[in-house]
Amino acid sequence: MTTDSISAPSARTTVRRKADRGCYEREVVHAILDEGLVAHVGFTSDFGVAVLPMVYARLDDDLYLHGTVGNHMLRALDAADVCVTVTLVDALVLSRSAFHHSMNYRSVVVYGRAELVTDDDEKDRVLRAVVDHMIAGRSEQCRPPTSEERRATRVLRVPLHEASAKVRTGPPIEEVADLALPYFGGEVPLTLVRGALVPDGLSP
Amino acid sequence: MTTDSISAPSARTTVRRKADRGCYEREVVHAILDEGLVAHVGFTSDFGVAVLPMVYARLDDDLYLHGTVGNHMLRALDAADVCVTVTLVDALVLSRSAFHHSMNYRSVVVYGRAELVTDDDEKDRVLRAVVDHMIAGRSEQCRPPTSEERRATRVLRVPLHEASAKVRTGPPIEEVADLALPYFGGEVPLTLVRGALVPDGLSP
Repeated sequence: MTTDSISAPSARTTVRRKADRGCYEREVVHAILDEGLVAHVGFTSDFGVAVLPMVYARLDDDLYLHGTVGNHMLRALDAADVCVTVTLVDALVLSRSAFHHSMNYRSVVVYGRAELVTDDDEKDRVLRAVVDHMIAGRSEQCRPPTSEERRATRVLRVPLHEASAKVRTGPPIEEVADLALPYFGGEVPLTLVRGALVPDGLSP
Repeated sequence: MTTDSISAPSARTTVRRKADRGCYEREVVHAILDEGLVAHVGFTSDFGVAVLPMVYARLDDDLYLHGTVGNHMLRALDAADVCVTVTLVDALVLSRSAFHHSMNYRSVVVYGRAELVTDDDEKDRVLRAVVDHMIAGRSEQCRPPTSEERRATRVLRVPLHEASAKVRTGPPIEEVADLALPYFGGEVPLTLVRGALVPDGLSP
C-alpha cells in the first residue's frame, strides 16, 4: 500500500477540528470517493451559497460531475470554484452521556475549480465511469451514448489536488464517572445494502 | 395528512430542473430531514465556499446544527447565510442506455441564516433532539448534559422557511428502440441498515 499524498495539505484542506482524524493519503481519498454514490457540491449561485447532491465519478486524480446541458446549475459550475464533499456513515456512536454521542464516518472534502471537459474521448471515459461507479462493469452491459446524447451532456472536471479525508472510527469517548451509570455505550453499525434488482418488466 | 407548504417557494427554492420532482409540502420536507443522519452544510468560509458534513436535528419548523465552541467552522456559521442539504439514496436506476442511468433519491435543500441559540431551555431541547434523532428515545437512556457541557456546546438554528424537497421514484426512462437490446433495466434498492449494537465493554 502506497502512502503518497495527493498533495501537501493546503490552508483550506488542513483538518483543524479533531486534526488526528485528518488524512491526505491518495488511497484513502480515492477509496472514499469510489465507495460513495452522491457528492454534495457547493458553489456560489445567483442566490448565494448552494449545495446540491450530484452523482459523480473518479478517474485517476480527477473527480467528474455531469448533467444535461439544459441544467442551469451545471452551467453555473463551469469555471467556478467549488467544494465537493462525499460522506459515508459507518456507525452511530452511543455514549453514556448525551454530550459524547457521535458518529463514525469517512468523508472527503475537495476544493477546486470545475473545468468544462470538451474532449470527446475524455467525455466518453467519464460517462462510462459514471455507470461503472454505480455498478462495476455496467458500461459493458448497456448501450453507449450516441453522439447526440454526448452533446446533450455537460461534463466537468474537478482536480483532486486539494483534497482531504476525515475519518472517525471506534467506540464512544466516555467520562470515567459515567461508566457506573445504568446506560449502555457502543456502536450501531450502519451499512448501505444493495437489494436484488427489481426489473422494469419492459424487456420483450 | 395535511398538505400545507412550509412557505411559498422562493426564487431559490423553486425547483427548476425536473420541476415535476419538486415539492414544498411541510410533511415531505420534515420526513426527509427526520430520516437523514447527516446534513451537508454550505457556507462562505475564509477560503471560499465550503461544504461540511454535520449531524443535526429538526424541531418543528427549525433545523439545528451544533458543535463544540472550539469549532472554528461553527463560529463562522454564526449569523451566516447557509445552504443545508440532506439527501437519501433509495435506488440505483439502471437503464438499457448509459444515458438514462439515474438514481432514486429524496433530498431537501434549505436556505437560511444560521442564528446562535442562547436560551438554555431551547439548547437543552435541541441537545435531546440530536440524540433522539440518532435513536428514538435515547435522550432518556443517557446522562443529560451538565451546565459545563451545555456551555461548551454551540447550537445554531436554521429556520425552514426556505426549504424544498426533490424526489425521484420509479423505473428508468427508456428509449423505445432500446427495449429490444439484450440488457436489463430496473431498480436496485438501496437501504441503510442498522446492525445490532456492538457494546464497548466498559460497563462494570
